[in-house]
Amino acid sequence: MLSLEDLRGQFENYLQSKSFDKNPQGLYEPLNYILSLNAKRMRPALLLASYNLFRDDLDVAMPLAFATELFHNFTLMHDDIMDEASLRRGETTVHKKYDVNTAILSGDVMMIYAYQYMAMSPPDKLAKVLDVFHDTAIKVCEGQQWDVEYETANDVSVSDYVKMITYKTAVLVGATMKIGGIIAGASDEDADHLYKFGENLGIAFQVQDDILDTFGETAKVGKVIGGDILQSKKTYLYLKAIELIEDRDRADFVKLYHSDIQQEFDKVKKVKKVFDEMYVLHYAQQLKENYEQLAQSHFDAVSVSDERKSTINEIVGTLIKRES
Amino acid sequence: MLSLEDLRGQFENYLQSKSFDKNPQGLYEPLNYILSLNAKRMRPALLLASYNLFRDDLDVAMPLAFATELFHNFTLMHDDIMDEASLRRGETTVHKKYDVNTAILSGDVMMIYAYQYMAMSPPDKLAKVLDVFHDTAIKVCEGQQWDVEYETANDVSVSDYVKMITYKTAVLVGATMKIGGIIAGASDEDADHLYKFGENLGIAFQVQDDILDTFGETAKVGKVIGGDILQSKKTYLYLKAIELIEDRDRADFVKLYHSDIQQEFDKVKKVKKVFDEMYVLHYAQQLKENYEQLAQSHFDAVSVSDERKSTINEIVGTLIKRES
Repeated sequence: MLSLEDLRGQFENYLQSKSFDKNPQGLYEPLNYILSLNAKRMRPALLLASYNLFRDDLDVAMPLAFATELFHNFTLMHDDIMDEASLRRGETTVHKKYDVNTAILSGDVMMIYAYQYMAMSPPDKLAKVLDVFHDTAIKVCEGQQWDVEYETANDVSVSDYVKMITYKTAVLVGATMKIGGIIAGASDEDADHLYKFGENLGIAFQVQDDILDTFGETAKVGKVIGGDILQSKKTYLYLKAIELIEDRDRADFVKLYHSDIQQEFDKVKKVKKVFDEMYVLHYAQQLKENYEQLAQSHFDAVSVSDERKSTINEIVGTLIKRES
Repeated sequence: MLSLEDLRGQFENYLQSKSFDKNPQGLYEPLNYILSLNAKRMRPALLLASYNLFRDDLDVAMPLAFATELFHNFTLMHDDIMDEASLRRGETTVHKKYDVNTAILSGDVMMIYAYQYMAMSPPDKLAKVLDVFHDTAIKVCEGQQWDVEYETANDVSVSDYVKMITYKTAVLVGATMKIGGIIAGASDEDADHLYKFGENLGIAFQVQDDILDTFGETAKVGKVIGGDILQSKKTYLYLKAIELIEDRDRADFVKLYHSDIQQEFDKVKKVKKVFDEMYVLHYAQQLKENYEQLAQSHFDAVSVSDERKSTINEIVGTLIKRES
């Protein structure tokens, strides 16, 4: 059994060896750039760890782990255009460093390479792997579309939000786990448990993101607390507060949340006060724990010895306890 | 043997049945929109015709024919953003009708669907089909990148240009033919001939496009003649003229070609005069014929009876003689 650090290390070596030293350079440089940014490589690590539950010869899984990282970074390149984001992992985003057209086309070719590496699956598993991958990739686009639409919508519910984060980010974690299992020869039942494990873990992770952005400690999170509030983002915390607040107070709270720093100097403090009055943090932690427990129950159901499960349990522990 | 009209008709029926009536509508509406625009469906028709050389049960080939049309339209959606084009097939482009973000994301999901339909290949042919498709899709992106870069480059040669149009458009025609052959059970040799046939035909088609834009008849082409000249496009005609012109006249011609209508009222007329002096039309027709003959020789080498080849010969005839 390899540790998380071993898996990440082996993946980094593989990734280094697959640098896109090709022409036209203008097309491929942005791929090398975005892949060089400091990243946790969580998706490839999870795919390898899932494979490693059943088998030790990681070589078979490595191209597919790379495929998940390529796909994830393609979505970042395009999402950053849509969100007009300037920073990604603390560095300039691709469309700001180069230009929008470059970020579109380099993102496109990156997605095609994701498919090319995904298709390096063992031939007898190829159709199954691709079925999972298409389905997931389509959902990721649908999730991004909802995310964009929700920015200007006035009637987003908590369940809309959970569906959106499920599609936008959690399904890819599920797919990563499932594909790792499929190519290692897992039974259909185990592969499905791995999918559900990853998906629920992904949702819990995303809720934790919302919690940390508002209730984390600056020193640990590494960025200013309250960014979501300042940007009036429709997070779980906000949507839950809207659901719980008295009808007579709702309009004022919506107005406060959508005000900017010029209008409301103390915006973060005031919003957090409302969150506190509604016990929103408590609900968020409850929701996160529910998804974690769901994830854990699916993982427990995978028919593999506890000893082989130790690395993934370690990863889950890290993700659950994280404060940044 | 089905005629070109039969193939197109059957494809249109299939396409109608595959309308994207899904949520989120904001993501899928642009797919239905671009697919509804009046189009020749040349790629799906060629895939079906190639399959039909060997087999009559078109059902197997239909999803893959649809995949080529989806992929082609994905490239149009993204290219139109990069080219800031307002019109596509006489109608508003997707990024103008909706917005740039929509054209990016709807294009992305369209490409994923292209892969999903391509993967409906018979399982024993899947790996082979995808190998061709990845390779081609990557080249299409590389070709688009060169096309963008050549707009501002000063040292583009005729051979650079031929490579660019080969990658940007001709390889997909080749892939279309080859994939049709592969899933029909063609030998590797026949499949390679079909690829080369399609690729060379695609190049000839593109050179013909350049010729018609400058030397066609407005009434037949359906648009103003000289559009490429007015937009200072680096077409084969221009690049060949640059190659042939006397050193002492080159700078003046480059200046004329890159002038706009305010500076040069008679720009089209003057440029065409230089083209005539250099016999550029003659060279272009020669080049086009060379690629047509190369295409024909590969098609002749495909080990199928002349009777089964009649539809594709009809398509080639139409493409070669076309005046619009």
